[in-house]
Amino acid sequence: MLALSLIGIGCGDPEQLTHAATRAINAADLVLIPRKGSAKSDLADLRRTICADVLTSDNTRIAEFDLPVRDAGEADYRKGVDDWHDAVAAKWSQTITSHLEGDGRVALLIWGDPSLYDSSLRIAGRLDPLPEIEVIPGITSIQALCAAHALPLNDIGEPFLVTTGRRLREGGWPVSADTVVVMLDGGTAFQSLDPVGLQIWWGAYLGMPDQIIMSGALAEVGPRIAALRQEARERHGWIMDCYILKRRP
Amino acid sequence: MLALSLIGIGCGDPEQLTHAATRAINAADLVLIPRKGSAKSDLADLRRTICADVLTSDNTRIAEFDLPVRDAGEADYRKGVDDWHDAVAAKWSQTITSHLEGDGRVALLIWGDPSLYDSSLRIAGRLDPLPEIEVIPGITSIQALCAAHALPLNDIGEPFLVTTGRRLREGGWPVSADTVVVMLDGGTAFQSLDPVGLQIWWGAYLGMPDQIIMSGALAEVGPRIAALRQEARERHGWIMDCYILKRRP
Ligand SMILES: C[S@@+](CC[C@H](N)C(=O)[O-])C[C@H]1O[C@@H](n2cnc3c(N)ncnc32)[C@H](O)[C@@H]1O
Ligand SMILES: C[S@@+](CC[C@H](N)C(=O)[O-])C[C@H]1O[C@@H](n2cnc3c(N)ncnc32)[C@H](O)[C@@H]1O
Repeated sequence: MLALSLIGIGCGDPEQLTHAATRAINAADLVLIPRKGSAKSDLADLRRTICADVLTSDNTRIAEFDLPVRDAGEADYRKGVDDWHDAVAAKWSQTITSHLEGDGRVALLIWGDPSLYDSSLRIAGRLDPLPEIEVIPGITSIQALCAAHALPLNDIGEPFLVTTGRRLREGGWPVSADTVVVMLDGGTAFQSLDPVGLQIWWGAYLGMPDQIIMSGALAEVGPRIAALRQEARERHGWIMDCYILKRRP
Repeated sequence: MLALSLIGIGCGDPEQLTHAATRAINAADLVLIPRKGSAKSDLADLRRTICADVLTSDNTRIAEFDLPVRDAGEADYRKGVDDWHDAVAAKWSQTITSHLEGDGRVALLIWGDPSLYDSSLRIAGRLDPLPEIEVIPGITSIQALCAAHALPLNDIGEPFLVTTGRRLREGGWPVSADTVVVMLDGGTAFQSLDPVGLQIWWGAYLGMPDQIIMSGALAEVGPRIAALRQEARERHGWIMDCYILKRRP
């Protein structure tokens, strides 16, 4: 019987690791580390650093594998994602069988929390036979963003919406909340909004040595964030950022 | 100069503590532990357990204080909350001055994450003089709920709304999302919804030895959750629960 632990490792700062995550990594027979291509090699590096820092068990092996690339040319977005999940599941299976005989405990280190905009649980559901699945929560980028700004996410007793850059760009300000968290924004979807009355709290490379944050009235700091973002992205070769918008009546 | 660390400790399982939290607790000169009255004494106990487990520094003192009670009789809800925040800030100041002379590092252990439905950041903003504030993220009950159910919170590329029981009861299903997380529900607000097409993932005492979870079609499991909740609440004297609802077209 195969057991699979999806272990949230936080979003950049190795200190965000929980004691449960440390324990789960050490309980694994095999840790799978995806290689995502050179631009994002810093991210595979965090996984390697974490393993090096916390592994005290001699029985745990580490296996790296090349993460299949999603076919961006596939016109049907859902089909593109489905095919990619199948390809990743096949790669996991292959890497596992080449290192374990039949059963054992496999760990995957998941960026942030496994439940938040992450496909690992869906991919795990495609494994055949289905392993026993354990999820260890990890600090998300939303939490790192709030902490960096010392910002309460919700107003008192009020809701908040978590959404994507694409959704914000296509749908405008959502009707159900005055606080919106935006993730997975390949650009600057906040610039598609009328900035009047909006505040922004933005952060990139949260928890990492290069963390940058900026906040203020969207009308004022929006253009500065856009410029800073572009400059940082060019310098690093990649960027991961997210932000919170609040509308004040 | 006073420094204040608001340290997220997770929502019931001491293993949810991060390495950053452990470090921050040990870096404190004084840890403040609120006593909330006997019914919720288990919660003060978690804070004591955590301190006992992780404190390796001899320089850290622990001070317990009685948390002021909010005046439930105040007709103006906002004023009631404001007054209560003032009272808590005064109590913090008083406890700090009786243990530290002028400056030092004070830590507060915050249930879950300090940014999520928690007043500590707002209370800290009332301290005079204003301390330097540091926030250490902690695992939230939402994450513990998803982990317990091995449930991805969002659908692929889709938004989700986090709200309160009162809001759900008063406003019905929100228009902006097909996934809704409900916290701070003193009762069973899910029973105010038409259950057709809704799924629920519910959990109480998440991360604690008495953790209970239940999931399924709301029409079917809703009444069972309501009964289980009432029974558990009577047995413990208190309950903390939250849930995720998903609408499938
Ligand atoms: C595929 S999602 C994964 C989210 C992750 N599971 C979590 O819990 O944060 C990637 C998105 O998370 C956000 N993100 C992740 N890490 C980040 C970081 N260190 N700084 C800023 N944003 C980050 C960005 O919005 C990015 O587009
Ligand atoms: C005042 S809020 C604090 C939330 C906390 N800061 C967090 O990050 O989870 C309290 C609400 O959180 C949820 N909650 C907190 N701990 C929980 C637990 N162990 N099990 C279930 N729900 C919990 C319940 O909905 C409860 O009404």
